[in-house]
Amino acid sequence: MDMSVPADSVTFAPRYTLAVDAMGGDNAPDIVLGGLELAADRHPGARILLIGDEALLRRQLPHYPKLAALCDIRHAASSISMDMKPTTALRLRDSSLRLAMDAVAQGEAQGVVSAGNSGAMLTLAKIVIKTMPGITRPAMAAVNPSARGDVVMLDLGANLACDARNLVEFAVMGEAFAKAVLGLPSPRIGLLNVGAEELKGDERLRQAADSLRDSVLGPQFHGFVEGHDITAGTTDVVVTDGFTGNVALKTGEGALKLAFLLLKRVFQTNLLTRLGYLLVRPGLERMREWIDPRRYNGAMFVGLNGVVVKSHGGADAEGFASAVDVAMDMVTHHFNDAIRLRLEQMGLAPTQNELVTTDSVG
Amino acid sequence: MDMSVPADSVTFAPRYTLAVDAMGGDNAPDIVLGGLELAADRHPGARILLIGDEALLRRQLPHYPKLAALCDIRHAASSISMDMKPTTALRLRDSSLRLAMDAVAQGEAQGVVSAGNSGAMLTLAKIVIKTMPGITRPAMAAVNPSARGDVVMLDLGANLACDARNLVEFAVMGEAFAKAVLGLPSPRIGLLNVGAEELKGDERLRQAADSLRDSVLGPQFHGFVEGHDITAGTTDVVVTDGFTGNVALKTGEGALKLAFLLLKRVFQTNLLTRLGYLLVRPGLERMREWIDPRRYNGAMFVGLNGVVVKSHGGADAEGFASAVDVAMDMVTHHFNDAIRLRLEQMGLAPTQNELVTTDSVG
Repeated sequence: MDMSVPADSVTFAPRYTLAVDAMGGDNAPDIVLGGLELAADRHPGARILLIGDEALLRRQLPHYPKLAALCDIRHAASSISMDMKPTTALRLRDSSLRLAMDAVAQGEAQGVVSAGNSGAMLTLAKIVIKTMPGITRPAMAAVNPSARGDVVMLDLGANLACDARNLVEFAVMGEAFAKAVLGLPSPRIGLLNVGAEELKGDERLRQAADSLRDSVLGPQFHGFVEGHDITAGTTDVVVTDGFTGNVALKTGEGALKLAFLLLKRVFQTNLLTRLGYLLVRPGLERMREWIDPRRYNGAMFVGLNGVVVKSHGGADAEGFASAVDVAMDMVTHHFNDAIRLRLEQMGLAPTQNELVTTDSVG
Repeated sequence: MDMSVPADSVTFAPRYTLAVDAMGGDNAPDIVLGGLELAADRHPGARILLIGDEALLRRQLPHYPKLAALCDIRHAASSISMDMKPTTALRLRDSSLRLAMDAVAQGEAQGVVSAGNSGAMLTLAKIVIKTMPGITRPAMAAVNPSARGDVVMLDLGANLACDARNLVEFAVMGEAFAKAVLGLPSPRIGLLNVGAEELKGDERLRQAADSLRDSVLGPQFHGFVEGHDITAGTTDVVVTDGFTGNVALKTGEGALKLAFLLLKRVFQTNLLTRLGYLLVRPGLERMREWIDPRRYNGAMFVGLNGVVVKSHGGADAEGFASAVDVAMDMVTHHFNDAIRLRLEQMGLAPTQNELVTTDSVG
């Protein structure tokens, strides 16, 4: 049972449900439907609540038989465009994204997946699905490639300035994600800083490090890590504020892009190098796929009363299917329960009083 | 005439002098002497004030005839180790690094180059050479590769937290560097942020952007740039606080390292890929050299009353020679005069009163 479901709305649910925004993203609903068709194979026990223009979806659905077998359609009269401001999106109470969030808030679904507008998505999630009790601020997380495997990094931009408590919460959520989605039994956690020594950085970072060291996560806390540790895979989780995380994510992606650009120039030098390219092409393509930021496609908004996964707006069907996989992993591996348990163990869980306040203020 | 030289100590100087710390770095003095020998060819008119263990240097010098022709040796009784704390280094008044800084402070040399301890170097530079009037905080700058050419980024860790005024000063210093060393007539300046839109980021960034837009640098100010713009070469100068800059620099280097690691695995797959490697090896080696962070070897401490260049501690002779080239470019192209002119044009130059205060407080 997902504890984020309000007690009074729990009904017998034989399987997990994802609410999917069929209208979000550059190529909706085609890639959404195509992605769900691919994902249906991998999650035959799931139920999909497909939300969007009902007439359009009913016309398309026959082309996606596996999806059709496990989906219900819910009509949404409007949708949120990619460039709509969050405040405008918030007023659109019948948008496909809003109805998907409502389904999670009302306990009909355990998670939502959308390839739509991420600013609107974060704002709606905070207001409709609401922040999990004990978490001060939801964060944006993503998976990055490293020399030793996948690395979860957060926050990536949901909170530009963060205090020590926020960073500790990010560590809790990053650890839960690495367990649920990457399948690591005991993920190692690093706090991003300008040096590995204990005295580096500002007071806020040192406080967060002290809290983590003294907590139940202590044995898994590696200490401070530096920028190059992200791709070295020194730790499985990299915790940072949203400003630094956003810059680091984009800088790393940019550097890999530069490497491929230069590599292309090298291979195009002459006939011999072109022949060289033909010999290594399959390996190069695997390499490019492996470091593609869209492999785990998109980002997760974590710290909410439900699973919220944002697929890349320009993703293809395979990309959207990956986002569905991540959401299903988070739901079936009880990502939010793992966070709640850690918060309790660390003395960060809210009291009954605070729970009421959180619910009413939202 | 370098205006950083106090008026009462100006003597007729037929050529520029660099004070070189012969004892700093992992392989001193060998790579220092080897590097200077290489650089001597490129700067025949320069004078080198070589500071270190006099007996040792006199014994070695005959092996470096070109350097011998343009160098004077000054004895230093001690040297600063790579792991010495800045506060300890500060008490060592006869170290080779200290005497090199003294030479600049006393107007005997226009710049200092060392492959030694960077923390000690920055601390000593601030106290001995002193911050330039009008500059609030010296910064650390370095050159990075991009798809469109070289990009200067600063600050890289000298100031973890920065205000809008600091960022504006970094833009001034970055522009002067791009002119003096990269030879760009009108460098484009970007302010690192989490999005390109004017409303992104915090108040401090928006204030800095407004100041730059309204200043003499306005036409060269591109606005906000994101992490991926660093390697895309969207601007020639990327301005950021020391925390973000340090993380971005190391993240970018780490990502390029990951790309080479994966590439190596691709080439080692089988006999055909090994043959492919042989065909592209020359190009790959040029590519690796080109993106090597040590091509411009090391970092510049800017905003001081003299040129201060830090060569990488583990650099080879060619690397140390590059650091000498950068220092010579900064000196001969009047890097500090360019900063002073901009500060005046932007109304940031100190008044006569402030000048006196700055000098006495140091």
